[in-house]
Amino acid sequence: MSGLDPAGTRGPLFTDHYQLVMSQLYLREGLADRTARFNYFFRSYPDYGSHQAGYCVTAGLGALLEWMAGFTVAPRHLDALRALTGPDGARLFDDAFLDWLDVAGFDDIEIHAVPEGRVVHPHVPVLSVTGPLAVAQLLETPLLNFLNYPTLIATKASRIVGSARGGSCLEFGMRRGAGSAVDEGARAAMIAGFDATSNVQASLDMGTTPKGTHAHSMVQAYMALGLGELEAFRAFARSYPDGCVLLVDTIDTLRSGMPNAITVFEELRAAGHEPVGVRLDSGDLAYLGVRAAKMLDDAGFEEASIVLSGELDELTIWQILTQMADDAASEGVDWPRLRDRLVYGVGTRLIVSEGDGALGGVYKLVALRGDDGEEWLPAIKVSDSPQKTPIGGLTTAWRLYDQNDAATADLVTAAGDQPFADRDTEELHHPHRDGVFRRLRQSEVSRVEALHALAFAGGAPVAPPQPVPELAARCADDVAALSAGVRRLVNPHTYHVSLDGSTKATQRELIARANASAPRSR
Amino acid sequence: MSGLDPAGTRGPLFTDHYQLVMSQLYLREGLADRTARFNYFFRSYPDYGSHQAGYCVTAGLGALLEWMAGFTVAPRHLDALRALTGPDGARLFDDAFLDWLDVAGFDDIEIHAVPEGRVVHPHVPVLSVTGPLAVAQLLETPLLNFLNYPTLIATKASRIVGSARGGSCLEFGMRRGAGSAVDEGARAAMIAGFDATSNVQASLDMGTTPKGTHAHSMVQAYMALGLGELEAFRAFARSYPDGCVLLVDTIDTLRSGMPNAITVFEELRAAGHEPVGVRLDSGDLAYLGVRAAKMLDDAGFEEASIVLSGELDELTIWQILTQMADDAASEGVDWPRLRDRLVYGVGTRLIVSEGDGALGGVYKLVALRGDDGEEWLPAIKVSDSPQKTPIGGLTTAWRLYDQNDAATADLVTAAGDQPFADRDTEELHHPHRDGVFRRLRQSEVSRVEALHALAFAGGAPVAPPQPVPELAARCADDVAALSAGVRRLVNPHTYHVSLDGSTKATQRELIARANASAPRSR
Repeated sequence: MSGLDPAGTRGPLFTDHYQLVMSQLYLREGLADRTARFNYFFRSYPDYGSHQAGYCVTAGLGALLEWMAGFTVAPRHLDALRALTGPDGARLFDDAFLDWLDVAGFDDIEIHAVPEGRVVHPHVPVLSVTGPLAVAQLLETPLLNFLNYPTLIATKASRIVGSARGGSCLEFGMRRGAGSAVDEGARAAMIAGFDATSNVQASLDMGTTPKGTHAHSMVQAYMALGLGELEAFRAFARSYPDGCVLLVDTIDTLRSGMPNAITVFEELRAAGHEPVGVRLDSGDLAYLGVRAAKMLDDAGFEEASIVLSGELDELTIWQILTQMADDAASEGVDWPRLRDRLVYGVGTRLIVSEGDGALGGVYKLVALRGDDGEEWLPAIKVSDSPQKTPIGGLTTAWRLYDQNDAATADLVTAAGDQPFADRDTEELHHPHRDGVFRRLRQSEVSRVEALHALAFAGGAPVAPPQPVPELAARCADDVAALSAGVRRLVNPHTYHVSLDGSTKATQRELIARANASAPRSR
Repeated sequence: MSGLDPAGTRGPLFTDHYQLVMSQLYLREGLADRTARFNYFFRSYPDYGSHQAGYCVTAGLGALLEWMAGFTVAPRHLDALRALTGPDGARLFDDAFLDWLDVAGFDDIEIHAVPEGRVVHPHVPVLSVTGPLAVAQLLETPLLNFLNYPTLIATKASRIVGSARGGSCLEFGMRRGAGSAVDEGARAAMIAGFDATSNVQASLDMGTTPKGTHAHSMVQAYMALGLGELEAFRAFARSYPDGCVLLVDTIDTLRSGMPNAITVFEELRAAGHEPVGVRLDSGDLAYLGVRAAKMLDDAGFEEASIVLSGELDELTIWQILTQMADDAASEGVDWPRLRDRLVYGVGTRLIVSEGDGALGGVYKLVALRGDDGEEWLPAIKVSDSPQKTPIGGLTTAWRLYDQNDAATADLVTAAGDQPFADRDTEELHHPHRDGVFRRLRQSEVSRVEALHALAFAGGAPVAPPQPVPELAARCADDVAALSAGVRRLVNPHTYHVSLDGSTKATQRELIARANASAPRSR
């Protein structure tokens, strides 16, 4: 044993210690069953340094809901907690709490959520959790863990798909990503529009065919045996005559790999098989790619794919396409046709979200039922930074589409309210800057869409999970509904996230009340 | 089902597709059982942009060996592979391969490795895998996945521990890290010298007590109920009178949180309990920390800890300590005593290795047995970048200590050789720059240490895993043996990694042979 129990992976104790500490406190103080509302949201888009996201793509909800439905505390978990002691040697968790935890579950939790594969924006709740305070509190850490990473990766993947301009994208990151989270990364990439992943188990679980051909090591092995690159390629073609993609950069791409590949492709064709393509994994991919295309064209393999891999991300793909577009003509290569045969194998920089490795999604208490069990008391955490103050109270979220069916704004209203319900004009207030708002007339809006749907109730997801291709289709629709400015890779246009007039007024009042209770010191 | 099978997490199909493709090819070509040697190593230290690592710390080996020992292919895995088809509709994997895979395992694999918790450097093999080509190839992806992330995190954690200068470090990253890999991240942090983690299951698995107190949400809940921060703190003290750490920044750290905490601390002490401390999670932690210390000192709580959290890493901790050291005197706070009571809660920036989110560890074929089953044929991949050319052939690695018992160089020799075996002087050659070397006399060396030990043979780890505290002790010793220059946070001194004269000669010959077989094109 390395000390980590693989069977315990994301078990019921997959949480931060303070969640248990607080739950025990709530139980002792008679607050465990008090109904609470928490919202999950993020405050800013990923910022990769030289480039920034203008939208995010949700992922991870399906796995979270499954985990909740399967939540069970076993005797060994209770025994482990029973054995924990504080600095004074006394037990940290008493029998009453362990008895409570033994039967704890998410039967009384309701989750309303933006479904997976949708475009989302800062401050707008991605989901809300309503249920007993002690249980909803316990859920914080696993919920954040299940949602933050996949959403981060789906966001990066969506940008990469955009940069590839129709070229096929393959996920190759499992050797550099973090543990088994690479499976979730692969799934997030597929939701955002990747065509396949090299990750075998994740592919099979998603019902897709994994992709990949061979590594340098195969060519090296043939070289070590004195057989050389050409014999390695021939061996590959013998085994895979109808799926032959050859890695051409083990020795020298243009002087060895490409000529040898073309020899084998000609042999394949003579035997009645059509080769699939070549892969370039090092060097100046744009320069080499154009010349490889020229060599393939000249040899009559105009349809052969050219797979590019090696530290790719949205900026490198953009750069490669730009350089190739400039360079192709001078080599006599038809650029649009070359562009259509390019395939991108994207590994490290996707799976770790190079440049911004964590989504800062948070889970904040926004309301609590009063002593009467009816009234909702809004909760807020005032912060020195206005943009860190969450939207308190019970709210709901909407997306407004303009007359061209482009998404024009996300709007947060009080729960129960609805945009343009009894009014022809909505005030769209900046979420944190007082007095900054615009007015929108109903006639300017073609469609008002509720972003949240009930996702979990009665201890189970309310619907079976959707297959990844359906999620990918929804994601593609959402991205297409964004303006080009919001989608651009660098310095994107800021999408409008707004509060309606009544939510803005509530926020102002809550902040004033909190400030009154304690003067700001600095 | 979200589409990802939790039971399949890191199952036998946790690999890149091309590993299966190559293994089937080796089986068909009669090469599956040919004995091969692969080395795992990395080419450069993590570079966080404004700061760089001067050493790495190994982690992840224990979990890898367990996974290998538990490797079994079930009928459902074979069925899934049997159903895969290529573009022509034909099966990708034939019955002969599936029969082979059905009984495949790591019984004939031997791993020699640098143990966990040790300092390691670029180019020096961290481990070598020897065994049948088709099986050793299959191992590539899981091996890289199991080792790269924990080594990355142990490295970052070691730097953070160094920056804390004896202050206690707590791992808080599970809400922002990638899936269940946060468990491996927590373990890596503990190996590198962290004192505890908030991750409950990971703590229990390691036999340590998880750490954590309460969140802002607890104070918010009391505020929403009209009870306020003071009552929230009193409730916490009631439940945890001997483990009372209060989070003081929900409303206003110095005007509300600290005075309320001190009130509760006085009540606790009057009841015979000693409070543990306060936690600051926002604002200018250095400024607030000094003033919080002053308030605690003035109230007679000179021993109370001050836990700092919020986007900490090695640079922010260094900056906070620097600012506090300057600021403490002016506030009349005893700086060395304040420094000793600081505790650091480190989350996001550790668990994602902020600034450099992936270790580029690779797994390269270095030798293959000839047709006679005896002779080892060295393998090499020539690259346009000399620093990407691995050390080919069978080698072994040593650490040389100087007369002060400081690590002075890591040396790679031919397998079977030993530094100073039959000579009084060793040539230490630069791994990639020809003609750059220094000479070391045996009299300058106090100790020659073999870095590798047999770790896996006969289908099982050769020794039970060591407990994390033992790994942490070994790590501390290794870090202490580094010069201060190698340990420094920014622009560290380059540790000497060298090849001995004979290994250098072999490398030169291999490169010349590979270049002769194909002229370089660019």
